[in-house]
This record gives sequence, C-alpha cells and structure tokens, in this order.
Amino acid sequence: MNKNSSNTMALAPNTSNKRETVCIFGTGDFGRALGHKMIQSGYPVVYGSRSTQTSSLIPKDAEVLSHAEAAQKAAIIIIAIQRQHYNFLTPLAEILHGKVLVDVSNNLKINQYPDSNAEHLAQLVPGAKVVKAFNTVSAWALQSGTLDASRQVFVCGNDTEAKQTVMDIVRALGLTPLDQGSLLAAQEIENYPLQLFPMWKFPILLSLGLTAFFFFYCLIRDVIYPYIYENKDFSFFIAISIPNRICPVLALILLALVYLPGVLAAIIQLYRGTKYRRFPDWLDKWMLCRKQLGLVALAFASLHVLYTLVIPIRSFVRWRISSQIISQAQNNETEPLNTTNAWLSDSYVALGILGFFLFVLLGITSLPSVSNNVNWREFRFIQSKLGYLTLVLCTAHTLVYGGKWFLSPSSYRWYLPNAYMLSLIVPCIVLVLKFVLIFPCLDKPLTRIRQGWERNPQYSE
Amino acid sequence: MNKNSSNTMALAPNTSNKRETVCIFGTGDFGRALGHKMIQSGYPVVYGSRSTQTSSLIPKDAEVLSHAEAAQKAAIIIIAIQRQHYNFLTPLAEILHGKVLVDVSNNLKINQYPDSNAEHLAQLVPGAKVVKAFNTVSAWALQSGTLDASRQVFVCGNDTEAKQTVMDIVRALGLTPLDQGSLLAAQEIENYPLQLFPMWKFPILLSLGLTAFFFFYCLIRDVIYPYIYENKDFSFFIAISIPNRICPVLALILLALVYLPGVLAAIIQLYRGTKYRRFPDWLDKWMLCRKQLGLVALAFASLHVLYTLVIPIRSFVRWRISSQIISQAQNNETEPLNTTNAWLSDSYVALGILGFFLFVLLGITSLPSVSNNVNWREFRFIQSKLGYLTLVLCTAHTLVYGGKWFLSPSSYRWYLPNAYMLSLIVPCIVLVLKFVLIFPCLDKPLTRIRQGWERNPQYSE
Amino acid sequence: MNKNSSNTMALAPNTSNKRETVCIFGTGDFGRALGHKMIQSGYPVVYGSRSTQTSSLIPKDAEVLSHAEAAQKAAIIIIAIQRQHYNFLTPLAEILHGKVLVDVSNNLKINQYPDSNAEHLAQLVPGAKVVKAFNTVSAWALQSGTLDASRQVFVCGNDTEAKQTVMDIVRALGLTPLDQGSLLAAQEIENYPLQLFPMWKFPILLSLGLTAFFFFYCLIRDVIYPYIYENKDFSFFIAISIPNRICPVLALILLALVYLPGVLAAIIQLYRGTKYRRFPDWLDKWMLCRKQLGLVALAFASLHVLYTLVIPIRSFVRWRISSQIISQAQNNETEPLNTTNAWLSDSYVALGILGFFLFVLLGITSLPSVSNNVNWREFRFIQSKLGYLTLVLCTAHTLVYGGKWFLSPSSYRWYLPNAYMLSLIVPCIVLVLKFVLIFPCLDKPLTRIRQGWERNPQYSE
Repeated sequence: MNKNSSNTMALAPNTSNKRETVCIFGTGDFGRALGHKMIQSGYPVVYGSRSTQTSSLIPKDAEVLSHAEAAQKAAIIIIAIQRQHYNFLTPLAEILHGKVLVDVSNNLKINQYPDSNAEHLAQLVPGAKVVKAFNTVSAWALQSGTLDASRQVFVCGNDTEAKQTVMDIVRALGLTPLDQGSLLAAQEIENYPLQLFPMWKFPILLSLGLTAFFFFYCLIRDVIYPYIYENKDFSFFIAISIPNRICPVLALILLALVYLPGVLAAIIQLYRGTKYRRFPDWLDKWMLCRKQLGLVALAFASLHVLYTLVIPIRSFVRWRISSQIISQAQNNETEPLNTTNAWLSDSYVALGILGFFLFVLLGITSLPSVSNNVNWREFRFIQSKLGYLTLVLCTAHTLVYGGKWFLSPSSYRWYLPNAYMLSLIVPCIVLVLKFVLIFPCLDKPLTRIRQGWERNPQYSE
Repeated sequence: MNKNSSNTMALAPNTSNKRETVCIFGTGDFGRALGHKMIQSGYPVVYGSRSTQTSSLIPKDAEVLSHAEAAQKAAIIIIAIQRQHYNFLTPLAEILHGKVLVDVSNNLKINQYPDSNAEHLAQLVPGAKVVKAFNTVSAWALQSGTLDASRQVFVCGNDTEAKQTVMDIVRALGLTPLDQGSLLAAQEIENYPLQLFPMWKFPILLSLGLTAFFFFYCLIRDVIYPYIYENKDFSFFIAISIPNRICPVLALILLALVYLPGVLAAIIQLYRGTKYRRFPDWLDKWMLCRKQLGLVALAFASLHVLYTLVIPIRSFVRWRISSQIISQAQNNETEPLNTTNAWLSDSYVALGILGFFLFVLLGITSLPSVSNNVNWREFRFIQSKLGYLTLVLCTAHTLVYGGKWFLSPSSYRWYLPNAYMLSLIVPCIVLVLKFVLIFPCLDKPLTRIRQGWERNPQYSE
Repeated sequence: MNKNSSNTMALAPNTSNKRETVCIFGTGDFGRALGHKMIQSGYPVVYGSRSTQTSSLIPKDAEVLSHAEAAQKAAIIIIAIQRQHYNFLTPLAEILHGKVLVDVSNNLKINQYPDSNAEHLAQLVPGAKVVKAFNTVSAWALQSGTLDASRQVFVCGNDTEAKQTVMDIVRALGLTPLDQGSLLAAQEIENYPLQLFPMWKFPILLSLGLTAFFFFYCLIRDVIYPYIYENKDFSFFIAISIPNRICPVLALILLALVYLPGVLAAIIQLYRGTKYRRFPDWLDKWMLCRKQLGLVALAFASLHVLYTLVIPIRSFVRWRISSQIISQAQNNETEPLNTTNAWLSDSYVALGILGFFLFVLLGITSLPSVSNNVNWREFRFIQSKLGYLTLVLCTAHTLVYGGKWFLSPSSYRWYLPNAYMLSLIVPCIVLVLKFVLIFPCLDKPLTRIRQGWERNPQYSE
C-alpha cells in the first residue's frame, strides 16, 4: 500500500534543464492532468490551444501558445484532442514534419472506427512519427496520484527511436511502459481500456446458464414435488438448501471443463500425429480461458463450503434434529452407532476437505505474483498433477456422498435423478480419458509429438 | 520463492573490465555489505577510510586507501557515513568536484533534521553531484541475499546523468531503481524506511476506538444487565459472544465508511459545479485510505464468519440446545416446523454468505498483483459496482437478522438498543444518498462535471 | 488476467528496418518458436541449417541458409541445438569470431555435465562472445503466447555489451531480462528450469515425516487401544478425527520451528560477540526456508480449521450427542450450566480463532506482491512481532484446550501422552528462550552486535 508514496513524494519543478520540452495540444481534462504530472517530473510543458488565454486550470508553469508556435518549441507533441478534431492538424503538417506525435485518445465503443485513431493520425500527418501511448491511464489517476489499478502504459509505433523517447517519458512519470510493437497494435491498445473482463465472459455466461438450469431442476425436485405429493412447504429451501446443491454441482462440472480441452487436444494431436497444425478455433479459445473457468469453479466450491458449514446453525436443521431426538426419547428407542454410516459420512467429508484445500492451493498459485516466481516445471506440476488430484478427490467426494442413492428408486422423482448424479458425467469422462491416455502405448507417442516429432511429415500443408 | 535464486547465483568477480570503479567512504556495516555486493556484481571497489589498515571484515578484493586517494580513483563515491561526520568532506571539496556523491544515510527519527541528509551533503560539497539512493535497503538484506521485502531503491538527485549512473548500478545489483525526481524528494525518501504503515494508522485507530466502545456497550447489555437483574453469570460471553457482536458491527460500519467519502465528494462536486477545486483536506485523506478501511472491515467480517461457524461446537450452545430438547421431551411437547422462522433464518444466513463472498472477492482484487492486471474500467466495476452490492447484501443481512426485534421492547435494556441497530445507521445513510444520486437529474450533471464540464467557469479562482 | 493481451496483440512484421538481423542455428521446435516470435517483434530472421530446404514449419518470412552463410548475415547467432552437436561449430570459428552466440540449451538432469553448456560453447568458439539466455522459456509458451508462468529470462555472459544486446531482444519479445552476471552463473541458470521447488523440499519432507509419526501414534492411542481394551471399532477415526489431531500438532510444531533458528542465531551471536562470522551451514539453510516452513504450517492450520468446523455435521458426532440427550431425558436428569466449562471451551476456541486469523495475515503478507510494497521496518514488524503473537496465541490455544488433562492418568494410554502434549515441547522452548532474550541485559548487547559492534575484534579470523 506504499506504492502510492512514490506519487505523493515531492518532485521538483526545476530540475529539468536537461529534460526536453514537451508540447501538449489540447487543454482539456486529460491534457491538463498530463501536463501537471509532466511538470512535476521536471519537463517544461507548452500548451497548444485555439485560444491562448491562460485559464486558471492550466498548470501555472506551462506556457499557452497557438498550435503552430507551441509545436515549434518541442520535438514531442502530445495530441490530447478527440479524433473528430484531428483535421485541424493537416495545415500544420509542415511544422509537424519529423516530430513525434503521441496519440493518447480513446474511443467510446470497441472498434468504433474501422482504423485506429493513431493510424488515422499517421495518415493525416504522414511526415510525423506517430506513437500511441497513455490511453490506458485516466486523468483522475494522474491528478490524484492514486494509481491503484494498473500503472502499465502500452506503447506502440513504427519508429523505434520515437517510441523509445516516449517510453522514457512514461518511465519518468512513474509508470511502466510496455512496448507493443508497430502501429498495427494501436487498434488493440485503444480497445483495451474499454474491455470488461473479456476472458471471463465465456466462463461467467456458462456458469450463469448452468446455474439457471440446475436451479429450476432442483426447484422441481425439492420444492414442487413435495408440495404436490406430500403437501409440504419447503419454499425456504431456495435460500440455502438449493444453492448448496447447485454450487457443488457447478464447481465439479466447471473443474472438469478445465481439464477436458487438454484431453481433447491430446487426442487430436495423437490422431493427427503432429503438434504443428492449429487446433480448431473453439478449442483454442477454450484453452485460453481455462484459468478463468477454474477460478469460477473455485468460487462455487467456496460457496459450497460456506453453505455446508452453516448447516448446524440453520433453524430448520435444529428443528429437524431436535424433533428426531424427542421422538426417539419418547419412544424409548436407542439407536446403536452405525459404523458403516460413520465411515461413509466421515470419508466424504474428509475427501471434500482435501479436495477443497488443493483447489484453494491451485487458486493461490494462479495469482500473478505467485506464478511469476515459479518456473515452467513447477507451474506444470501444480496445474497438471495437483489439478488432476483435485479433480479425483472432488469426484470421489461426490461419489461417496451419493453412492448409496444411485440404485434407490426414491431418489428419482418424476424420473429426474438427483442433481449430483448429473454433475458426475463430465468429470468421469475426463478422468476415464486421462486414465487411458497415461497408458504407455499412447503416452509415449504423445510425448514425442509434443517434442516436435511428426508421424507423417508430408501431412503438414 | 525462487526470487532469491538470483542472489545466490554465482556472480563473477572479474568480468568487469568495463565496469567503472566505485569508491565507498566508510568501512562500517553498510559500507562493507554494499562493497561485497558490488564486487560480486563486477564492480572494482576502493574504500576510503581514516585508517588504511585492511580489516578482515572488508571484502578481500577491495583496496583500502585514504579518503583523498580513494576519491581520486573513482567517479562515483558512496558516502556510507553518518550525517554527524559529514564535515570531514569539506577539505576534500576540490577532489570531489564534479564527482557523483551517493548519500545512503538514514536517520533514527522521522524529520530528525530540518533538511535532508542528502541536501545537507550537497550544501557541504557544492561542486559535487549528490544522489540519494540505497537507504531503503538493509545491510543484512544485502549480505544474506534474502530480499524478501522490497527490492525497490528510491533514487533522487538534481543531476539527471548522475542519477542515471546510480540507477544503472542499482539495476546491476539486482534491485529495482525508482526515480523520485530532484533532491527535494530526499526528505521523503529518508523518512520512508522509518514509516510504519502510515496509511493504516487512521483505519486502525478508528477501529480500535469503535471496538472499545462497542465492547463496553455489549458488556453492559449482555453481561452486567443479566447479572444485576437475573443474577446470571454470563461473563464467558467475553470470549466469543461479545466479539461476535462487535465484529459484524465494525465490519458493516467500516464498509459503509469506505463508500461515504465518495458520496460526499459527489455532493460537493454537484454543489460547486466543478471538479477542479480541491476537496477539503479531511476528505482527501479519507479517500486515500479507503482501501485500508475496506481491508480492516474485511478482517472484522472474516472474524465474524469464524466466530459464527464455531457456534455449534461451543459447550454453552450444546448445553442450551440439549436442555431445551430435554425439557420438550419431558413435557411431551412437539413443536411443528415454523416456516416463517426457517425462511428468516435461512435468508439472513444466505445474505451473509453472499455478502462475505463478494467482500472476499473485493479483497482479492485489491492485491497489488491482481489490480495491476486490471484496466481502469474493470477496476471501477469491481470496486464500485461490486462494492455497493456487497454493502447492500451486508446491510440486508443485518436487517433481516434483527428485523423482528426492532419493535420489541425487550431488546432495549436500560434504553440501550442492540448494537446491530446502531451499526445500521451509517450504511443506511450511504445507501440512501447513493440511491438519490443515481437519479438521472443528479447523475447526468455529475457525469458531465467529472468529464471536465463546469457550471460556473468564472467560479474557479 | 489481461497480461496475455500483450502477446496476442498484432505485432507488425515489417517495422524493423532498424532492428538487426538475428540468425538462428537449428530449425528444431525451440528454434522455430523463437524465430516466429522474433519475426512478430520485427526482427529479420535467418536460419542456419544442414539442409537448406525450407520446411513448411519454418516461419514464412525467414530465410534458410547454410550455417556459414547464415552466420555471416547477422551479428547475433542463437544456438538452438543440443549440446551433443556443438562440435560442428568448431570449423565455423573464423566466421563466428566477434559475434554474439546465444546459448539457449537446457539439460535433462541437474548438473548433467561438469561444465555448463554455455561455458562449453565459449571454450569451443573462443573468439565469440557467449551469452546464456532464453533457457527458462518453453517453446510452447512462445508459440501460444500464454505466458502464465514466469516471463523472467535469466541472462549471463562475460561481455557486457553482448549481454546488453541480448537483453534488449528479450525485452522486445515482451519478456523480462534478469542480468545474472558472468558466464559462471550459466550452470545455475541451466539448472533453474529443472528445479522442482528446491526451497520446499526440506519443509515438505519434514512435515511428511512428522505426519507419518503422529498418524501411527494417534492410531495406536485412539483406534487400537480402544479396540483391544474396550472392543470398540473406531476405525472411521482415520478419516477425520485423527487428521484433526495431526494437523494442529504439525501446525504448532512447524510454526515454532520457524522461530527457533532466529533464537538460536541470537544465542550464537551473543556467545561469539560478533555478527561477522558465518552461522553453521545447517542454520543458514534452515533460516532460508523459514518462509516455506511457515506456509506449510499455515496449510496444516487451515486443514485443522476445516476439520474442526465440520464436526457438528459428522454422523458420529450427531449420534453421540443425540444418544447423550436421550439418556439424560430418559433418566430425568437436567444438567445445570457449568460456567467453568463454558469459559474454558469458549476461550480456547477464541484463542484458536485469533491465532489462525493472525496466521492468515502473515501468510497474505508473504505473497510476493504484498511484501514488495512494504518497507523493511514494516516487514520486520509483521514477520517478527505479529509472528510471535501468533505463536503465543496458538500455544495458549493448545494449553487451554488440554490443560485439564495433563494430570489426569486416563490421558496416558500405554504410557503414551496425548499428541498435543508432545506438540507443546518445541513452542514452549522457543517462547522461553525468546522471553529470556528480551531481558535488557541480553537484548542490549545483541542489538549492538547486530549494528556491527564486536566484543573481541581480534576474534574474527
């Protein structure tokens, strides 16, 4: 939390006899914020504006000149203007020739224009060296110095030297420049701040869909069925009992879906006999969002744990237990300890605890700062070996929990099996396929293929 | 955890025919540790000392000369001496002219001297280029190579080139230099290693104060009152029952205090019609420690969860339940299931689980490595949208929990309402204000103000 | 999770009129993957190969020439060939003279050869400047762009300029170069990707050993003893009851072992009167894996918490409680509330909760991204002050839990004391030693020694 202190530290305004003057076109919100920050970091700043009246909002140490005059004073010009007004730059083309133009603009929608703003700028002023930068930082963050979110500034441009100059400025402002290559990357950089968790979209939509399905499924089996046949009102199951059925089911299915694409990829590679042909697009996308799928599964597993641990403090459960005990006491019954039951109950709980524990470990190692400190061998060990162990434990937990009910007809209401039976389908398929794939007759060729060997070298187009 | 390996790796002592000689004044603990590390990284090191006898503690490959001789051998001189002895440098002023002097000193107290040590040094040797660096690294960390804490080295100085040279050395030693600007920043850099969680001071003091208040409040209501009126000894409530009342109350109040300053800022901006006037100082400070307030609230919420989950294994609770059941069994009573009670109990528990789950999510995204990988739109989505949802869920959890007791006179002992009723005041204010602010007639002008629009441009001084 | 976006961003193939041509010897898997990535980043790539037929797998924009021809086209030559085939480079020595050779090779085993591959290469081609790099990145990671694990590329070499050139390429590919010094570091760099959690080996082996010991210890006391003497089948204790005895015992012992080396080091320093003599090797190693020991202890503590919280939903526990209540109801007994018991039960639970809470805090602050944002004073405050408080709370938790059984003979079955009694030995030793060390008569000289003072300066050899 001391990260911010670097921003609040006193930065001298006049240490910069060696720093080059920077010109900013546009005295809007972002232009002013950037200018302030640059002056703090020791850069002389000149504003280029239509009206050269100094407003009270413009940093005091900055000059305000006409566009042409301002541009002549500096080798680097930051264009803090919206794309619609870029046209005013065309008459200045001569003055801007050979200068570094920094495009900081953002759009309102993803892919709003066919070409990126930076490429548009490069086309309008062909003699200038256009660099895209600073669009991922907000004016507010620059002003307040509370850079809680990312300090990364994506930079791209066709001229390596111009890019280097801009990256030095970024660094001087206390931000982290990231070279993204040529101006072709500008479109993606401009879309970046508009994105809202793009990698999470599929996992979250999938889990919402599955949640809705299993919610109505359990509602029919656990609330509507007893209401119709036994005239019992279990509507309060909606609060805890049904969520506590949905969560483990989703956690298990999503966890299995994390490992399914790896197994499918292995089968495809074995079938093709090479690793050099691209996977189908859906498989590629699926593989890229495995981490997100796993984390959503972990969220459901955590909710399942919480829902399970509160069972004994639920008023319904307390009522059920006490009425059982009272009826036993009144009938003078004393039940002996059923060791089989104790074994079953304890072992499915223990399997669940161990599975959840490993799952949390997997989640912790997927934190960026942890996975950065791990080499490839260790990363693969955790995500593959420990991951499969987690899947095995969680599947076993579900099997032991419900094993005895598989053959009992009372667990099929309206021919609908219990939800956890459905949840076992995907994990069992994954585990069986994986089990087959570790047989040496399949594992050996697969390993060779992954090391670059090809069965039919002529196959590759 | 492999981070350290970079330190334990073999670094050659004689690869440095291209690395410039570094002179270190002072053969104390830090001077020796720094010299060792520099020699490991390939820098020839010369010590300047009063006595030129080579001690066994000084690195073997380093020469020990008189101050004047040593200074002549190098362009960079590290002053590993305490501020009190800086005066001996005055006679050396001529030799030190034009050299880079690196001030590595620390003080014992924050703001011990009116000027920083580095500025003092610059004044004593006006011809030299003074750079402040290395003061945030400990001798022990350099020696042992276990840089578990920060590798960041703050660097500041008036001469850009000199600063660059020092930053290159920092990088070569495996540390991360952070340019902090001119020597004016030296004071702050010298205070930095003496700080002890400055941003946490207010949240922790506030929560300690509130904890003390609510502790005595609950003590009076739950222990002293029954002792006086019913002569019952519930002193053991101090261990779990009372903490489990204080924790949720504090979690809710502190969480609401995270969102209150944002609401107040919006009201101030709406009233002023501009965002370009500074907020009052207290509001600025409050806004800067919102993250810490939120994390303290999360800590209390976590304790509340733990205290709640252990309820069924408490010996007092077991005794109470079993004596209830026994008395029912003996009186041949059988209570039917109270569906309303089941609904209330299940829904406040479910609301609490969901609120806590979102709260933990907020906590995870505030980890530096996670928030660094998130763009501004995503960060605002999490911290604002999810944050308010958390506040709504937690407030609803408290309301449903205690709703039925609001009107019951028995919950007012000595006219003192239950603690959770007090805890609802701040969150309800925040939620009502926020609800008012999202009406379009207020939201629209606010959005425009935040984009830089001003109602009365002449207003700004 | 958006880290990856930097890889998937469009990188232009022809922006690189300023980027120098890179030659890659070897068209194997890694050579191709590296070439692809370099072309994407704007480097012209030439392959040197035995057969100059362009394969479909080689990037389209790359030329394939003979080794000699390719080497002449570039100043940097990447040797993507296995060590066994390095001999073919000897005849090319003249062409390679003065060029930068980048060794990217890895071995199959740690310390497979007496010298590192890079040093072997430097010996074969003495005129070239050999740099070790890229061996920590996998071909798959380069191809797919999913650099979930580390982006760090360790670089070492004797020629500073050559190293700098290679580090610039690393940066241009979106990876993070880490300068490791001279070629002497190559052995360690080559071993790095073969390591599997080297710092975790000792803590994990130790905890496995202790787990096995305590498992059989508890098995004898809790399952075999009652089976023989009372003919009761408690075999299902293996699932939860026994793990829930082992976990707290191991957590406490391992936590104490985290603080024991610090206490021993203090005693050694006090005895020797100097801090400048190295500790015995075992103590050094022990101190370096304290963090890992602590995290393993935290894992056991978390399991203990989970095992404890599920107690009330275990079928055995429900049976035991209900049969107790039934027998009481049938015998018309009503037990009054035992306040002492309520105090004891509540306070050991409360101590456990607070201890676990602080333990989790310690764990969170050991996350790399958190500890990087903390200065030394804060780090020491957390890890030492809060750490000891955690140890005190956890020891007190155990003492209060079992205090009453210490003197009861029934807790010694076959003269074996309860496992938790054994677990108290190490923590009590640590706490007593630490308590003695904070007496001023010992604390003062220790502080002075740690600041560099020596009792017998002649002592140091």
